[in-house]
Amino acid sequence: MIEIERKFLVTSNAFKDVAFTQNRIAQGYLSSVPERTVRVRIKGEKGFLTIKGNSSESGLSRFEWEKEIPVEEAKALLNLCEKGGIDKTRFEIKSGNHIFEVDEFYGENEGLIIAEVELKSETEIFEKPNWIGEEVTNDNRYYNSYLSKNPYKSW
Amino acid sequence: MIEIERKFLVTSNAFKDVAFTQNRIAQGYLSSVPERTVRVRIKGEKGFLTIKGNSSESGLSRFEWEKEIPVEEAKALLNLCEKGGIDKTRFEIKSGNHIFEVDEFYGENEGLIIAEVELKSETEIFEKPNWIGEEVTNDNRYYNSYLSKNPYKSW
Repeated sequence: MIEIERKFLVTSNAFKDVAFTQNRIAQGYLSSVPERTVRVRIKGEKGFLTIKGNSSESGLSRFEWEKEIPVEEAKALLNLCEKGGIDKTRFEIKSGNHIFEVDEFYGENEGLIIAEVELKSETEIFEKPNWIGEEVTNDNRYYNSYLSKNPYKSW
Repeated sequence: MIEIERKFLVTSNAFKDVAFTQNRIAQGYLSSVPERTVRVRIKGEKGFLTIKGNSSESGLSRFEWEKEIPVEEAKALLNLCEKGGIDKTRFEIKSGNHIFEVDEFYGENEGLIIAEVELKSETEIFEKPNWIGEEVTNDNRYYNSYLSKNPYKSW
């Protein structure tokens, strides 16, 4: 139930040519405080409820609990969420033994593209594609929960 | 996904003699704002995650979504919850065609006993046992989410 990941800004659209999946995602927050975020997500025809804890001191590890739920229930729960919310497309791209998830944001977060890679340990090595830019793992402004209340266009 | 219920104070311990179930409950809140409470509950050997919306104007109806989850996951999620939390025993008592759920609180809420009856409509008639006292359906102080932050002993 611990998630280890690193997060980067993306410097070009080149990732789109090599993506092997692409899914529109709508999500909202029942709680957006970093100590206990509760997220409702609709991804294609699937619904998910996800609970995350605060990041570790390094910013790399985070408690995460997720359950798939019926999409109709996810829609009802989205109606209950805080104002704001996130609309994005998620692309998946292979890089060596790892998979990068790249999120292109829309609406009030238009212009923002973030890549994440999940690791087995905080020190694991991974191949960095050439469209990967500055690391923002430790910058809480790039939490989706933060972006839902303080969108990128308002920065 | 709409719950209709009425809530009452309890005036004696007579309900204990007629209860047909009795379960200790520990619960905490990932969100305790009335617009979207997210509750983690351990009841005996079962875990539950429950999401509720705000009450209707009458105070009687409320959106409610609940899923059973493994008790080990519920324990991990309880660790993430806001400070406070609720410790109580729930008794179930038959009254005519209805079941009253009576909660006896402990810890910082010691001294408080609340009975709830779930109804099919806001106008449904039900038999009131003689240990039922003042109705508190519209008093948000008796929400468990409120009691977890503002316990009865501090009133």
